[in-house]
Amino acid sequence: MAKEITPRSTDYAQWYQDIVKKANLAENSAVRGCMVIKPYGFAIWEKIHDQLDRMFKETGHVNAYFPLFIPKSFLSREAQHVDGFAKECAVVTHHRLMNAPDGSGVIVDPTSKLEEELIIRPTSETIIWNTYRDWIKSYRDLPLLINQWANVVRWEMRTRLFLRTTEFLWQEGHTAHATKGEAVEETLRMLNVYAEFAENYMAMPVIKGVKTANERFAGAVDTYCIEALMQDGKALQAGTSHFLGQNFAKAFDVKFLTEDNNQEFVWATSWGVSTRLIGGLIMTHSDDEGLVLPPNLAPIQVVIIPIPKPSPEIDEVVHKIMKNLKAKGITVQYDQDMKNRPGFKFAEHEMKGIPVRLALGQRDLEKNEIEVARRDTKEKFTASLDGIDETVAQLLLDIQENLFQRAKSFRSQKTTKVDTFDDFKALVDSDIPGFISAHWDGSSETEIAIKEITKATIRCIPFVQEEEEGTCIYSGKPSNKRVLFAKSY
Amino acid sequence: MAKEITPRSTDYAQWYQDIVKKANLAENSAVRGCMVIKPYGFAIWEKIHDQLDRMFKETGHVNAYFPLFIPKSFLSREAQHVDGFAKECAVVTHHRLMNAPDGSGVIVDPTSKLEEELIIRPTSETIIWNTYRDWIKSYRDLPLLINQWANVVRWEMRTRLFLRTTEFLWQEGHTAHATKGEAVEETLRMLNVYAEFAENYMAMPVIKGVKTANERFAGAVDTYCIEALMQDGKALQAGTSHFLGQNFAKAFDVKFLTEDNNQEFVWATSWGVSTRLIGGLIMTHSDDEGLVLPPNLAPIQVVIIPIPKPSPEIDEVVHKIMKNLKAKGITVQYDQDMKNRPGFKFAEHEMKGIPVRLALGQRDLEKNEIEVARRDTKEKFTASLDGIDETVAQLLLDIQENLFQRAKSFRSQKTTKVDTFDDFKALVDSDIPGFISAHWDGSSETEIAIKEITKATIRCIPFVQEEEEGTCIYSGKPSNKRVLFAKSY
Repeated sequence: MAKEITPRSTDYAQWYQDIVKKANLAENSAVRGCMVIKPYGFAIWEKIHDQLDRMFKETGHVNAYFPLFIPKSFLSREAQHVDGFAKECAVVTHHRLMNAPDGSGVIVDPTSKLEEELIIRPTSETIIWNTYRDWIKSYRDLPLLINQWANVVRWEMRTRLFLRTTEFLWQEGHTAHATKGEAVEETLRMLNVYAEFAENYMAMPVIKGVKTANERFAGAVDTYCIEALMQDGKALQAGTSHFLGQNFAKAFDVKFLTEDNNQEFVWATSWGVSTRLIGGLIMTHSDDEGLVLPPNLAPIQVVIIPIPKPSPEIDEVVHKIMKNLKAKGITVQYDQDMKNRPGFKFAEHEMKGIPVRLALGQRDLEKNEIEVARRDTKEKFTASLDGIDETVAQLLLDIQENLFQRAKSFRSQKTTKVDTFDDFKALVDSDIPGFISAHWDGSSETEIAIKEITKATIRCIPFVQEEEEGTCIYSGKPSNKRVLFAKSY
Repeated sequence: MAKEITPRSTDYAQWYQDIVKKANLAENSAVRGCMVIKPYGFAIWEKIHDQLDRMFKETGHVNAYFPLFIPKSFLSREAQHVDGFAKECAVVTHHRLMNAPDGSGVIVDPTSKLEEELIIRPTSETIIWNTYRDWIKSYRDLPLLINQWANVVRWEMRTRLFLRTTEFLWQEGHTAHATKGEAVEETLRMLNVYAEFAENYMAMPVIKGVKTANERFAGAVDTYCIEALMQDGKALQAGTSHFLGQNFAKAFDVKFLTEDNNQEFVWATSWGVSTRLIGGLIMTHSDDEGLVLPPNLAPIQVVIIPIPKPSPEIDEVVHKIMKNLKAKGITVQYDQDMKNRPGFKFAEHEMKGIPVRLALGQRDLEKNEIEVARRDTKEKFTASLDGIDETVAQLLLDIQENLFQRAKSFRSQKTTKVDTFDDFKALVDSDIPGFISAHWDGSSETEIAIKEITKATIRCIPFVQEEEEGTCIYSGKPSNKRVLFAKSY
């Protein structure tokens, strides 16, 4: 089974596809660019959903649901937004089918043409701000801290499972505030929630920063992001949080009565992460044997395999172990399948990235022992059956931490300061380019020129860095800090 | 506040709309027939979702996600299905917008016309069975027990918040089995899950039964349903579970290798409930003062109001009560708002249907007492502060049970055996017609004739009833059991 995976060193893109397929995460559907998220892949999304939802609620947010459809004219209301989103999208033009007169099947009923076409939401700022106009009258109605879990559609030309699909699942937070300061604070609060989630749950280290004007969300004043480095040295934008200023309030005429009796436009934020995170999870931790999942997001954290097959003695001990693990909140599965041999099962569970494997045979029982294998390092050791639940609980913590440290150390190794454009180009063209920290003159022209020549883009202007005088690698103009370049997904 | 609600006796439909609006559950959106589910309404849907999801998982199901879009041709594959669903639906014909040459906004790019139109899923049997073809090869791949939480679109001409909207949220289970017996068993298992959920969580009594051929799901061999009676004497179909036979397997060529090495078509079921349940919840329990929620689905179960406003002494006791209630898994809110008076708050929380209200003032503190009010009966009593958490926990159980018994007793009162068509017509035309139990000759012609004359339909042939010889109320032909008629939503 494992040998069907293309090694990462041979073809990283193919390896990625193999993992998604062999670990049963997702597949392409009959509809171009849309994926089917299979049960195991969806179980990971459920873990992501549940944890993020908890974090949103802890920070005072509530969920709501807005329509799938957006009237075409709404997209034109906000000048920048229309350029960014009124492009590749699914357009509903009719609302009825009818039997073909020649009996050949069904056809679109031409009399059912809509007066105004509807767009499947590519993002919901417009329909939501059109709704907020009625919800916000006074400062007493603010802040409005609302999140939505939904599907969205962006008609992508080149798609890749999880990373870029025509339809994807996401959450989009849309908040409304009385002051600029509060809105900026919210934008950063949610960026920090994303960073905390990425690092503590996905075990994926991220750089927090702000996007350049060029890479900003269409309609935002500022776009903040978390950027992660994948094993192939490309960056993944893992989440964005936008300070929208009063742009959407102005476009949809959302004003409120201030405490001192003035009418003012409302301040806005929006922020989102999507099923793309599953792509990031795969490309941060997995290896040539299959998926590697951090325990905090693994649908199954521990699998127990009877050697060579179930028996009443083994079953009895296994059920005791399972009971103790479950009491600790650990999800565990007992693989009682009779058709396959242990070796096959080992490979299968490695493929699925289950963090800890326990194997128990008759001889182990006699010695009061059990074999423990960890997926991240593939190390095996023998542990006493006494307190095995404690051993496993501690091991899960160790694996979570090890995955994070391993990814962080990879990122340090693959983050390079570069001071000349020749070095820059050489690095971008190398096998695993990574993050490139370089001086930039701050102009969009330079940014675009560098992108055209090298395909590398400015991923962000990191929050944390030293001020440092230097000269732009491309234009030679003065610069006072470095920005982070990379090729990206 | 409360007086803005139209009394039920004046205009039930208007009362319903008032409740949905005043309790902040949902509202119509800018898109015809599509609703915005507001945070409080969505919180109820989250409770419904979470509980049903647990019950699905306990019965062995997993979640997955299939595309929003269905190629038009898929709908024609199953002969009955196409008649039922290839009618009023949203049709995507293009995938790009462009700036209008005259600068007037955006228009559909005519060059982006799709080769084959895509339908927004009205239900997902077709796209799912097209996918299952690749997933099911042998009996070892069966059963497949998959559920999806999703939005669906049916282009309705007349819509009503929650009860009938163009877009709605639902879950749809789609299972695949090796034998007919297993599939039938699954169909009934899920019907029972729905009934258990309706009765134990929604406190809404339901009748389980089978639909007539006429009311069957398009593509099903048999449709089972749970039917509930609303306060205005109309029935609400609250959930359906379909035995699909081999219809979709044949339409999408899904065969499997049996244990004895034959190729056979797979057996199927599908089952679903939707945001419509929230409409049922409202129309089962609520009154002229607002929403009434069963404790098991109330986002906030208990609200505490300081009389007349917060004070350090009151706050201290309230926080202790809250801590104890939370430890019992009870959700509680402390209304510390300083702007509104207790009377206003009382009305507001009644409107929202919070099951239990506690009110605590300085004089209560001195007497070591607290005022307890239950939303269902509007009774108030004074309880000791000692063990108030126990008192409240017990009261929540009582309210849950009382709501169920009250609805059940209403249903018994409003279920009438009728033996002549004149009595039938008179009853259907009365104020609160209710369920009408009558003999029917089993023919579609009779069923349709009765519907045309009276607008009443056969809600189901109940599972539980005595065999009884009689004659059809309409045709006078012999019949051996009664069926349940009603006007319905």
